[in-house]
Amino acid sequence: MIQEAIFHRTGGAFAYPLSPHQLRVRLRAKKGDLAMCRVWYADRYSGEDEPGTWADCEKTASDELFDYFEGRIDSQTGRIKYVFRLEDTIGEKAWFGETGFAAMKKDAGVFQYAYIHPSEVFQTPDWANEAVVYQIFPERFHNGDKSNDPERTEPWTPDARPRADSFYGGDLQGVIERLPYLEQLGVTSIYFTPIFLSPSHHKYDTADYYQIDPQFGELSTFKQLVQEAHRRGIKVILDAVFNHAGDQFFAFQDVLKHGERSRYKDWFYLHSFPVVQEPKPNYETFANQVPAMPKLKTENPEVRRYLLEVVRYWMEETGIDGWRLDVANEVDHRFWRDFRELVKEINPAALIIGEIWHDSSAWLEGDEFDSVMNYLFRESVLRFFATGKIDAGQFDAELTRSRMIYKEQAVRVLWNLLDSHDTERFLTSCSGAEEKFRLAVLFQFTYIGTPLIYYGDEIGMEGKTDPDCRRPMIWEESCHNKELLAYYRRLISIRRSSPALCRGNVHTWYVDANAGIYAFVRQYEQEVVGVVFNNSDQQRTVCLDTSPFGTSATELEDLLQGDKFPVNQYKGVFQLAPYQGMILRGTFGSV
Amino acid sequence: MIQEAIFHRTGGAFAYPLSPHQLRVRLRAKKGDLAMCRVWYADRYSGEDEPGTWADCEKTASDELFDYFEGRIDSQTGRIKYVFRLEDTIGEKAWFGETGFAAMKKDAGVFQYAYIHPSEVFQTPDWANEAVVYQIFPERFHNGDKSNDPERTEPWTPDARPRADSFYGGDLQGVIERLPYLEQLGVTSIYFTPIFLSPSHHKYDTADYYQIDPQFGELSTFKQLVQEAHRRGIKVILDAVFNHAGDQFFAFQDVLKHGERSRYKDWFYLHSFPVVQEPKPNYETFANQVPAMPKLKTENPEVRRYLLEVVRYWMEETGIDGWRLDVANEVDHRFWRDFRELVKEINPAALIIGEIWHDSSAWLEGDEFDSVMNYLFRESVLRFFATGKIDAGQFDAELTRSRMIYKEQAVRVLWNLLDSHDTERFLTSCSGAEEKFRLAVLFQFTYIGTPLIYYGDEIGMEGKTDPDCRRPMIWEESCHNKELLAYYRRLISIRRSSPALCRGNVHTWYVDANAGIYAFVRQYEQEVVGVVFNNSDQQRTVCLDTSPFGTSATELEDLLQGDKFPVNQYKGVFQLAPYQGMILRGTFGSV
Repeated sequence: MIQEAIFHRTGGAFAYPLSPHQLRVRLRAKKGDLAMCRVWYADRYSGEDEPGTWADCEKTASDELFDYFEGRIDSQTGRIKYVFRLEDTIGEKAWFGETGFAAMKKDAGVFQYAYIHPSEVFQTPDWANEAVVYQIFPERFHNGDKSNDPERTEPWTPDARPRADSFYGGDLQGVIERLPYLEQLGVTSIYFTPIFLSPSHHKYDTADYYQIDPQFGELSTFKQLVQEAHRRGIKVILDAVFNHAGDQFFAFQDVLKHGERSRYKDWFYLHSFPVVQEPKPNYETFANQVPAMPKLKTENPEVRRYLLEVVRYWMEETGIDGWRLDVANEVDHRFWRDFRELVKEINPAALIIGEIWHDSSAWLEGDEFDSVMNYLFRESVLRFFATGKIDAGQFDAELTRSRMIYKEQAVRVLWNLLDSHDTERFLTSCSGAEEKFRLAVLFQFTYIGTPLIYYGDEIGMEGKTDPDCRRPMIWEESCHNKELLAYYRRLISIRRSSPALCRGNVHTWYVDANAGIYAFVRQYEQEVVGVVFNNSDQQRTVCLDTSPFGTSATELEDLLQGDKFPVNQYKGVFQLAPYQGMILRGTFGSV
Repeated sequence: MIQEAIFHRTGGAFAYPLSPHQLRVRLRAKKGDLAMCRVWYADRYSGEDEPGTWADCEKTASDELFDYFEGRIDSQTGRIKYVFRLEDTIGEKAWFGETGFAAMKKDAGVFQYAYIHPSEVFQTPDWANEAVVYQIFPERFHNGDKSNDPERTEPWTPDARPRADSFYGGDLQGVIERLPYLEQLGVTSIYFTPIFLSPSHHKYDTADYYQIDPQFGELSTFKQLVQEAHRRGIKVILDAVFNHAGDQFFAFQDVLKHGERSRYKDWFYLHSFPVVQEPKPNYETFANQVPAMPKLKTENPEVRRYLLEVVRYWMEETGIDGWRLDVANEVDHRFWRDFRELVKEINPAALIIGEIWHDSSAWLEGDEFDSVMNYLFRESVLRFFATGKIDAGQFDAELTRSRMIYKEQAVRVLWNLLDSHDTERFLTSCSGAEEKFRLAVLFQFTYIGTPLIYYGDEIGMEGKTDPDCRRPMIWEESCHNKELLAYYRRLISIRRSSPALCRGNVHTWYVDANAGIYAFVRQYEQEVVGVVFNNSDQQRTVCLDTSPFGTSATELEDLLQGDKFPVNQYKGVFQLAPYQGMILRGTFGSV
């Protein structure tokens, strides 16, 4: 037994409550080392002679170095002590507890999950499990009201190529007009990049947190948008840019004007006085000395109160359904905890999504965000489907690793994106190879987590990184990739009608790194769905073990193409064209 | 390189700020595997061609399975990305970052510590580094006022043997009278077990959080006690029993009386109505169905506010210096975060110590407690010095492990106890073998962390577990072990006058498991102190490498016995009698 490789801790994604009486425990071991993992547990106050209870820990995933074992502790009292019982592949056994490894249980010590407080059970909104989100960059989605166009608005044409300072006149009225399009596409939520007053086209430099940018519309326009979206079953999520303000924000203007005498000088991180923006800002900003984005001192209770009032105002006034948090990893945890408490108090079903590009586990403990924009997902999907930098084995390992750092409540609702306003468009990353893009989209819509569509991806829009990825949406149907759009609609429809795809767990089904074949299975209650990808330019014949579909499965149907495949002796044989994917659902015989 | 054994994460005790511009990073590897560990770092917003900065990570400790490497990242911006550069003992090299191991830096990914907020730098009160704490169980320390004695007060005699329901009449006036004794002993803080109104002798079943128990005195007595203690430079810490109330607490009485109609029904975890105490309580309690201790629903904001007002009242009204938190691990984290915020707002120098018997890292992140009662320390010391169940190698490994789970800010002020009102007395655990007890006490007063003396240990009191460990303090000097008392005074004096012992780091110096020899070195700025223990019944001669004392050390002096030992070629030879210990300080030649 490779003891040095065995890892567990009584927190994070390794021990967390699923309910006030259920604790998920996870253990990591060297790949292939353990043949068995079980967990013994009892109430923390029980005596030494307590017989306790046993739970099996299943091997649920593997990456390049590790196997992951997961079990569930059911506890009446929620005060839990537990010890793992391990056996390796050559029959060596050990107890593993807080003090380490031992031959006798009493010498291993006990891990302790002291008390499950109902308030400390991580809960994400139920609707998020079934969500399909569409990201709108309002300046570039649709111009519904010419009267509010900025000066120097450029022509909205299919071949428009924005510069960093371009304006095209997109607005909220435009979104309202396109709600039928979104409803037909099948999306259930819209995430808007910022809409509050700001001089830029992206509006990440807020001038006034209480005002809709007049280039986008009035408060009443936005209220109408929310109402009409809700009427169509579409939720609305706004962008909370609280890491920094814009330099036109009143408090920063006051600081520029009054310097050390400003009553807002503790709202920012000022290095000296007077406060200057040129040649270099003498205050902290977003990223590298961006004068227009002074960092807000969210640690300051006054700033916290101000911003939380902003949150309250928009939620109560307009009934929005959640917030996406810009540069969420650079705002203090205290702020986000108060933020969550307020948001959930106003609307327990509101969703909170952080923008974090790296391991986000510190923010997904359960008391800050529900989800993050899953850039780790994007990175893996990009390198497997678009650029081919990793093979199916590495892809599987990366997926496992980025799933195992989080609690399952979060994993189910991570925002799985292919691209965004901050990246190259995925189709462009595929060098326009639509077959690769389609396969990645299939993955996005079938894997665990919430698909996030960046506006225009569904009609085949391309674009290099900012500003090119922010081209105005193409509405000329003749310029749409209609087959692609139909494909998106079909995938969204399949996903939304499948509990397994919305709510199921995920297990690796089949990996053939050389052939470029990857497959996973998802299950929720009685439904099992298997998804197979041929990420190669060759036709492949794959023989798959169908036992995950149950012993009575006689046939699997590909929900995408409608083909049916017989099952014999728990095996099915599948022919996949180059870059073809299949969504297989079992047809159960009568039992 | 055993990659599976290498562990790091961007949080907990593996990455944490020491200041707004300094990040401590720690990496764990299989013992003996790595020959070198360095960390490369840069601002998170720097480009791919950023040359970055390097810091060495030193191997600072080892346990049975692992070596621990520690380095410090100095960052102007506090927004840090970093990658480890590792080399094993056979020359194999690897980069190690967020995405794993790689031959090329760019393929390893970067760990990210997104932003160091000044408010998120763990700070513990400076005075705590120099503290020596004395635990008083007020009912049993000294009876200074006969007029407030309980009915059936039993005689306060050296041979008194308490039962669970005994009363002896100890009180606050008694403590006031004995402050000179404590001052002479040299302690700098008193920790009182509960003093608020309660029917029991231990008073962990609070009837009124706003009233000093009249058996102990009046509010004015307590105020006088705090003032007189402060005048002598002694701080006062109270016990906050917030996990549960006593059943005479007004809110619980209301629940007993009015059941479902009580406005306090959400202050407790009630399973059904009417609320009954017999034959079994139908509500959650402390431990196993203790009817007199109904668990408080600290998750309820109303309860939280009530208890935090209690905290404010005692701090503002009496000027106490901190709180020890009873059953701290069963109260929700949200409560403790608010608690810390309030306590530090009222008095930034107040100290917060949780009672947790197991791995307490979840509460020592920096936003809840400063310290815990270090029962992990006690367990190791007990098994090495008292019962001999572990040898010096295992002792060292256990010390390392229980130190490495915490951030160094906490480690320096953990309350290192040998015993308490909840355990057998340590001298009794030594079966009365005073030489073993003395060696353990030497360890307690020289190791990193705050020594916590349980009243009476210093005069040789014995006692099995509760109720026997709560015997009334012996004041008849003829019954005191005067040599032991002098030994305590000497150790306290040596500790308090040594910056290295108060504030220094700690490194293992020498371990000889067979001979029972253990030694460590502590250093702070220019002072180096080495402590050697002969935990055997044989005389031992030990030759020690004196290089930790600097190249100019010509002689080491044992601060305990005054003996001087010459240093030759960075070696010193020390003869230790059975169970003898030495506190060695270098005498530096002129440099």
